[in-house]
Amino acid sequence: MAKEQLILFLGTILFLCVESKYIAYNTSQGVVPGKLNVHLVAHTHDDVGWLKTVDQYYVGSNNSIQGACVQNVLDSVVQALLADKNRKFIYVEQAFFQRWWRDQSEAVQDIVKKLVSSGQLEFINGGMCMHDEAATHYIDMIDQTALGHRFIKKDFGVTPRVGWQIDPFGHSAVQAYLLGAEVGFDSLFFGRIDYQDRAKRKREKSLEVIWQGSKSFGSSAQIFAGAFPKNYEPPPGGFYFEVNDDSPILQDNPDLFDYNVEDRVNDFVTAALAQANITRTNHIMWTMGTDFKYQYAQTWFRQLDKFIHYVNKDGRVNALYSTPSIYTDAKYAANEAWPIKTEDYFPYADSANAFWTGYFTSRPAIKRYVRLMSGYYLASRQLEFFSGRRNSGPNTDSLSDALAIAQHHDAVTGTEQQHVANDYSKRLAIGYKEAEQLVSSTLACLVESSLNAGCQNPVTKFQQCPLLNISYCPASEVDLSHGKNLVIVVYNSLAWRRNEVIRIPVIEDNVAVHDSNGTEIESQLLPQAEAFKGLRNFYVKAYLGQTPPNTPKYWLAFTVSVPPLGFSTYTVSTAKRTGSTKSSVHTYQSNEKSRFEVGQGNLKLMFSTDEEKHSNYVNIRSMVDKEVEQKYLYYSGYNGSHQKDQQNSGAYIFRPNGTYFINHERQVPFTVLHGPLLDEVHQQINPWIYQITRLHKEKEHVEVEFIVGPIPIEDGTGKEIRDFRTDWDLEVNQPIAGNYYPINLGIYIKDNKTEFSVLVDRSVGGSSLEDGQIELMLHRRLLLDDSKGVAEALNETDCVADDCRGLTVQGKFYYRIDPLGEGAKWRRTFGQEIYSPLLLAFSEKDDKDDWMNSHVPTFSGIDSSYTLPDNIAMITLQELDDGTVLLRLAHLYEIGEDKDLSVKTSVELKKIFPGKEIKEVKEMSLSANQERTEMEKKRLVWKVEGSLGDGYVPSRGGPVDPTELAVELAPMEIRTFIIYFDDNDMPNLLADA
Amino acid sequence: MAKEQLILFLGTILFLCVESKYIAYNTSQGVVPGKLNVHLVAHTHDDVGWLKTVDQYYVGSNNSIQGACVQNVLDSVVQALLADKNRKFIYVEQAFFQRWWRDQSEAVQDIVKKLVSSGQLEFINGGMCMHDEAATHYIDMIDQTALGHRFIKKDFGVTPRVGWQIDPFGHSAVQAYLLGAEVGFDSLFFGRIDYQDRAKRKREKSLEVIWQGSKSFGSSAQIFAGAFPKNYEPPPGGFYFEVNDDSPILQDNPDLFDYNVEDRVNDFVTAALAQANITRTNHIMWTMGTDFKYQYAQTWFRQLDKFIHYVNKDGRVNALYSTPSIYTDAKYAANEAWPIKTEDYFPYADSANAFWTGYFTSRPAIKRYVRLMSGYYLASRQLEFFSGRRNSGPNTDSLSDALAIAQHHDAVTGTEQQHVANDYSKRLAIGYKEAEQLVSSTLACLVESSLNAGCQNPVTKFQQCPLLNISYCPASEVDLSHGKNLVIVVYNSLAWRRNEVIRIPVIEDNVAVHDSNGTEIESQLLPQAEAFKGLRNFYVKAYLGQTPPNTPKYWLAFTVSVPPLGFSTYTVSTAKRTGSTKSSVHTYQSNEKSRFEVGQGNLKLMFSTDEEKHSNYVNIRSMVDKEVEQKYLYYSGYNGSHQKDQQNSGAYIFRPNGTYFINHERQVPFTVLHGPLLDEVHQQINPWIYQITRLHKEKEHVEVEFIVGPIPIEDGTGKEIRDFRTDWDLEVNQPIAGNYYPINLGIYIKDNKTEFSVLVDRSVGGSSLEDGQIELMLHRRLLLDDSKGVAEALNETDCVADDCRGLTVQGKFYYRIDPLGEGAKWRRTFGQEIYSPLLLAFSEKDDKDDWMNSHVPTFSGIDSSYTLPDNIAMITLQELDDGTVLLRLAHLYEIGEDKDLSVKTSVELKKIFPGKEIKEVKEMSLSANQERTEMEKKRLVWKVEGSLGDGYVPSRGGPVDPTELAVELAPMEIRTFIIYFDDNDMPNLLADA
Repeated sequence: MAKEQLILFLGTILFLCVESKYIAYNTSQGVVPGKLNVHLVAHTHDDVGWLKTVDQYYVGSNNSIQGACVQNVLDSVVQALLADKNRKFIYVEQAFFQRWWRDQSEAVQDIVKKLVSSGQLEFINGGMCMHDEAATHYIDMIDQTALGHRFIKKDFGVTPRVGWQIDPFGHSAVQAYLLGAEVGFDSLFFGRIDYQDRAKRKREKSLEVIWQGSKSFGSSAQIFAGAFPKNYEPPPGGFYFEVNDDSPILQDNPDLFDYNVEDRVNDFVTAALAQANITRTNHIMWTMGTDFKYQYAQTWFRQLDKFIHYVNKDGRVNALYSTPSIYTDAKYAANEAWPIKTEDYFPYADSANAFWTGYFTSRPAIKRYVRLMSGYYLASRQLEFFSGRRNSGPNTDSLSDALAIAQHHDAVTGTEQQHVANDYSKRLAIGYKEAEQLVSSTLACLVESSLNAGCQNPVTKFQQCPLLNISYCPASEVDLSHGKNLVIVVYNSLAWRRNEVIRIPVIEDNVAVHDSNGTEIESQLLPQAEAFKGLRNFYVKAYLGQTPPNTPKYWLAFTVSVPPLGFSTYTVSTAKRTGSTKSSVHTYQSNEKSRFEVGQGNLKLMFSTDEEKHSNYVNIRSMVDKEVEQKYLYYSGYNGSHQKDQQNSGAYIFRPNGTYFINHERQVPFTVLHGPLLDEVHQQINPWIYQITRLHKEKEHVEVEFIVGPIPIEDGTGKEIRDFRTDWDLEVNQPIAGNYYPINLGIYIKDNKTEFSVLVDRSVGGSSLEDGQIELMLHRRLLLDDSKGVAEALNETDCVADDCRGLTVQGKFYYRIDPLGEGAKWRRTFGQEIYSPLLLAFSEKDDKDDWMNSHVPTFSGIDSSYTLPDNIAMITLQELDDGTVLLRLAHLYEIGEDKDLSVKTSVELKKIFPGKEIKEVKEMSLSANQERTEMEKKRLVWKVEGSLGDGYVPSRGGPVDPTELAVELAPMEIRTFIIYFDDNDMPNLLADA
Repeated sequence: MAKEQLILFLGTILFLCVESKYIAYNTSQGVVPGKLNVHLVAHTHDDVGWLKTVDQYYVGSNNSIQGACVQNVLDSVVQALLADKNRKFIYVEQAFFQRWWRDQSEAVQDIVKKLVSSGQLEFINGGMCMHDEAATHYIDMIDQTALGHRFIKKDFGVTPRVGWQIDPFGHSAVQAYLLGAEVGFDSLFFGRIDYQDRAKRKREKSLEVIWQGSKSFGSSAQIFAGAFPKNYEPPPGGFYFEVNDDSPILQDNPDLFDYNVEDRVNDFVTAALAQANITRTNHIMWTMGTDFKYQYAQTWFRQLDKFIHYVNKDGRVNALYSTPSIYTDAKYAANEAWPIKTEDYFPYADSANAFWTGYFTSRPAIKRYVRLMSGYYLASRQLEFFSGRRNSGPNTDSLSDALAIAQHHDAVTGTEQQHVANDYSKRLAIGYKEAEQLVSSTLACLVESSLNAGCQNPVTKFQQCPLLNISYCPASEVDLSHGKNLVIVVYNSLAWRRNEVIRIPVIEDNVAVHDSNGTEIESQLLPQAEAFKGLRNFYVKAYLGQTPPNTPKYWLAFTVSVPPLGFSTYTVSTAKRTGSTKSSVHTYQSNEKSRFEVGQGNLKLMFSTDEEKHSNYVNIRSMVDKEVEQKYLYYSGYNGSHQKDQQNSGAYIFRPNGTYFINHERQVPFTVLHGPLLDEVHQQINPWIYQITRLHKEKEHVEVEFIVGPIPIEDGTGKEIRDFRTDWDLEVNQPIAGNYYPINLGIYIKDNKTEFSVLVDRSVGGSSLEDGQIELMLHRRLLLDDSKGVAEALNETDCVADDCRGLTVQGKFYYRIDPLGEGAKWRRTFGQEIYSPLLLAFSEKDDKDDWMNSHVPTFSGIDSSYTLPDNIAMITLQELDDGTVLLRLAHLYEIGEDKDLSVKTSVELKKIFPGKEIKEVKEMSLSANQERTEMEKKRLVWKVEGSLGDGYVPSRGGPVDPTELAVELAPMEIRTFIIYFDDNDMPNLLADA
């Protein structure tokens, strides 16, 4: 029996027509002046690892976790673009694109090249991943961007024009001026800014701004920057068109039921007008896509074709296939004046209780591993340059790839699932292993003087110790009793000479250290703390699957002096005369009341055993004398299960539920070590926090080493451990606004007399919540997911068989108090040293050999008379696969940061490459994919509202004279060069066979 | 910190290669003799409506209900087939394919034609839908199959070779012999057979059989028939590859992690060997797909490419792209002897408590509507032929399409969602409306004798009354008091003369009926029962949105006599003399004890008012004298919520939970109507069951009209209403096995003296659960979903504004008791009359007109001297769009069914087409897509195990002599012809202008 439809249909006669009804949609529309232009940007956001690993996302495996396959996206996008030349698509993440590209036949590659050159397929952002902006080091951001950009340049001859940081959880000014303007981007777009900020900007039509991210560069490194009205998805109103999405499709076949062209056109116009209402100019952008969409691109393009066709027939607004570049050009052409934005977009909150600041610290061990590998990558590329790059390997490519991927905003951030975190670590380990081999063989060649012979198989076998941080170093834990000598080559990747105390575990105490001249030097033995032994045994077993065969009794410490980009050699042997000095050790019992002082040099710390928290800090040179209190606390992780907003503390979100002091009520036993080179104060703060406070005689900062974990969870509550310093008696003039910030290099506070600086060995979250106080979040262990997608609790464990323990984190931070205005020098210089630790390579020799005579004991890659100026660092020295050399020099200081060093400074390139003839130097964009002059020529000059008012003219280094080859760097300037050497030169110190 | 992977990777050096890694897969493998061949059949199963409407499935709208878009499937399959010429795909449902085809550009159509002609894309099954086999009439199955097949033949020049009934819920022998062998299929495959039967067949390797579905045809209409080991999905072991499916993909890129070629090849081989273990020959078929898959076909083909490549490299088994046709040929080539199967695969149960027999009755109103439209379609095509088909309409195409789709196994089955049921009804209503216009105008032309003038705009306007079943007929409810006459043209679509009582509602009692000669004929007025008034008022308002303006007081009944394929005309006017006879009416009160007899002719029924259930049945001609008991009962629907198996009774599943007699304890008031033409006994059985028992003077069967509903659900329990007849005193020799069967035409039981037959007006479920008893399921209303996918309870309601009521069903069944061996004649002949009710068209004339003189009062489309033999029916007479005529003649009897009529019989074609010159007659396959001789030539001759042993040689009509043009039909034979008329003839009685 017919149902209610009869009402409609018994009264009308409808002849169904069965003729062919092919509709050719008109999708050719471009920008139309005078109309509201809706720029439809077809895009996919493909996380380079998150719930699945990068490879799983690429091939589409492990779909039970998340249905996502990037191979589908790229395969189907190509087909869809070929089907209509007006269609456009942007692709972002080069880690995926490169995987796909390598799988393609030449025929497909040719097609794709044409799509790129016609602009149908446009690379946007163009780094290997869409890096995070909080937990990443700027050198890593540059490297990963350059890696993607140079691939695009090489295979497609194009340079991405737009920054596209649509998903990272807040945004750094560094992204705007450095990874934006200095890369040559015309604009930068992103999806996540604080919800209150967004609301205000919508009201004021200031989502789109001119962002001047750098105080030093001002308008010379500004960029057009747009925050989206909401996330990076299609507008409200039902415009999701993935396979199986349930937005109403535009049904335009009158022979079928549910014809809805008018309805859908109205939906489109409504959404467009709503967005126009919060946007300046008559151009709005719709981000038509979201995470891992376009798995079958036709589903989107079919609908977009129809919308463009029918919306333009309707005529109220103008819809067009567009890209962020086309959109940027349209914005620029509108000749509007835009609001100015300075500073960061941090921290990011998407609702009142959802501050995305937990991830500044989440997975602290991975954060440290990434930082360690970053420094190692810098050093190993230098050595690769010295020995000559081998495209066939071993080379640094694998480490380069792994590091690039690790910068993804769900990698180093700690917001990925555990198995994905493991994947990143695995990739880094593989990359490291290959680079380690390269480093060892290069050092072997260098010590064997066999560079010019194209050293392939040096005799010397060097070992390195990546687990030295947990005192595991089989290479140094050797029996020297039968006349063996341990040879240690110490490589310095900084372009300054460097004097520093290094330490290695040794199994005997009767040892002596000799320098490159064969002179015995002072050394100090420090007993291995019990806390380290446990750490070492468990983690060596957990990571390497074996129990360490030896148990070293001591750390052997001695001072090394290493030339710039070079090495010195030291030997350790059985002491024939005095040998190493054993540290004196005194343990204060918990009931013992006493005061004691540590520090052999200018800096002294005075401790009081009955007042664990306080110590007096005195620098007899700078006359700083301050009281410092240090404590550990934890935040209890919020459990939102029974709350209205259900917001837990988790991998992304920091939502504390009360602050707890650790060990407040009982005395901490102190063990104090004194020696000629350094003093240490050991404290077992509680059963799972161990701390060593270390003062080196020749240094004026305090080094604090901590071992935190496993964080106990027996009470069912997650915890976030902070190191906390309060009651410091400065008058703070510039307190950081009441919230957490990402700390990459360090943090400092100042008053009108002094500044207090803390430097870190990895990214952490931190703050200064009260005047005179700084806190760092060191470790996090949480039992609940925070509902931001990762769908796992941040509860890291490591296992030996069935013995699984919460992750223990070992690390260091450093602090120092300087007279006001004098802290920057330490922060900048020592910051570089933390980033680029000395690289140790170990070998053995028989007693009868005279290593120093038969080998090259010292080496410097730059002219022996030269060193880089104090304010300049060499952040990249790399031989590229075409034999040219990529060099980046960075001025480390902001304008006004240091009275002596914030000045324009010159570097002599000839001195950096002794013995080589520089044929040509091309200054490049930061990502080295175009010449700087070209980039500057194309730079859009945006109008800004009002004026900055200070008449400030940014300073820049001038052009490089091809004869003089001196490079000027103004404050904060980073200059990137490709250097061509004379063909007659050996391209490198070592050449391929 | 690196995690546990370090164990693996610190010890090895792995150089990641970044070279292009394009792999060209070898997919060219064909069948390999001597190996186990795994035939990979890429397919999608696209329900022509189920949870969404056919159009919604096609365009991919309403995805919140189910993610499915057939447009995606076909778009992407074409791309995938083009990408590799070895890839193959089968497509089944032409309702979808045709929608898609009409949307394509010529360029795409050309490509697809090439894919079809190369065999890459093969049409399988090829009807408009995959029809149900239980609730469908065989004529509808033929029509819908032919509609699809002829499209395929016309546009692609191919004929589908394989039946593919993979989803219907059990299988009919009719499918095997008629819609299989007679269509020319070489094989038939399906997924659903009883779970115990399947288990046994797996053990015995008899899933694949030779199915002889017809007793009459025996081996001459057998087919190779394969039941799948499980459903119609990929084998166990993870071989689902839709976008976002989570089967492990075959990862063969050694540069990425999770390489798994060996594992996946092993999975493949394991699954293949397991299936080989239950299959004869070394060929197995894998159905690589399932419902609405291949939305992005590349996801499947990418994996299938890889499996074929690596499995064949492995070599243990042979994998190939195949189709059911290739598989069939391979099976045939194996020259194996196969087990014989006869009879149905009904009923179907997929577990102990899940018998799929509820759907035999589900949605009884739709089932009736489909049947009604089927008969109307047959009649309207005859009239279309008489007037000449107009391709531009009005024509029967829309009704044809709607009916075809309604045969889908989730349409007429009642297993679709309510909104989808509405969609089918809407389509039927639209199709009906157009056909009604065609019928009215053709009849107008015929009565106006304007056929040869190319009648386009006849003066006469005929109205029809599709809601006559609920006594709503505005055309007859007219005021005749001012000299108006009501003209009724009665069309008979059977090829026999027919005498029958018709009835129409009239608003006055002073009327008389005249026949074509102007002679007044006997007529009888029956007062409208109150039960009908309520039904009429509610449903006219619900369906048409208006309250009927009149309230007819009477049914006017009179006997009409109508020639074959022709009409007679009757007029109703105000009575000048005697006029109609009013029925006598007597109502027996509930406490009145009495016996009474009804029946004016040979058949009498004696009722006893105090013993409601029993009546005596006496035929004074055939001397049958039997006691009959009839009652209504209901089954309570099972609620499995708290049971282990959770199996509810629902749209598919019949799971009764107790039997309840209706109205057992109280007397039913009888109202008895007597008159010259018929007697009626009215009973209000209970508040929601009304019944009329009707005996026509000239007929020897009992007609029972019932009005059932709304079924009360206030007690929270669903109910399934059955009409139940028991204690019948036959000794039953052939009880139907203890379960429900689909009843399309009727059901009968017999003992050694008599046979008791019940015929139905639509498909219902029924059974004979005890000797001498027959039950029919009339209506179902259930409150729970039965977990077979439809996700809705079968709880049909209709609303007038907010007044929503459970669906009331009106219908009829008919019964008769004959001496043993004499029942078939009534069942077959009257069965055709039920299927093809007389078609009534109404007009008015003024009293002064002499209609009979100015119009053609009677007409027959065949020679006036001719009628089809009693055992032959014309089941199709249709002008095709090329002007040729499709004719199907059906012998109605099985061998041995009737002593006189189960014989070979001849039909004279010349007499069927009087006045036309037959130029050529081509005998065709049943679906009219190939010549019968070609089909027979290609027929595969299968070997069967043992022999049938009876030496039975099936009888068939011989070839048609081109001069004599006599068609012989053997028992059960259906012969299909395309008839070409002489070009000089007018192709039809009416020609296009």
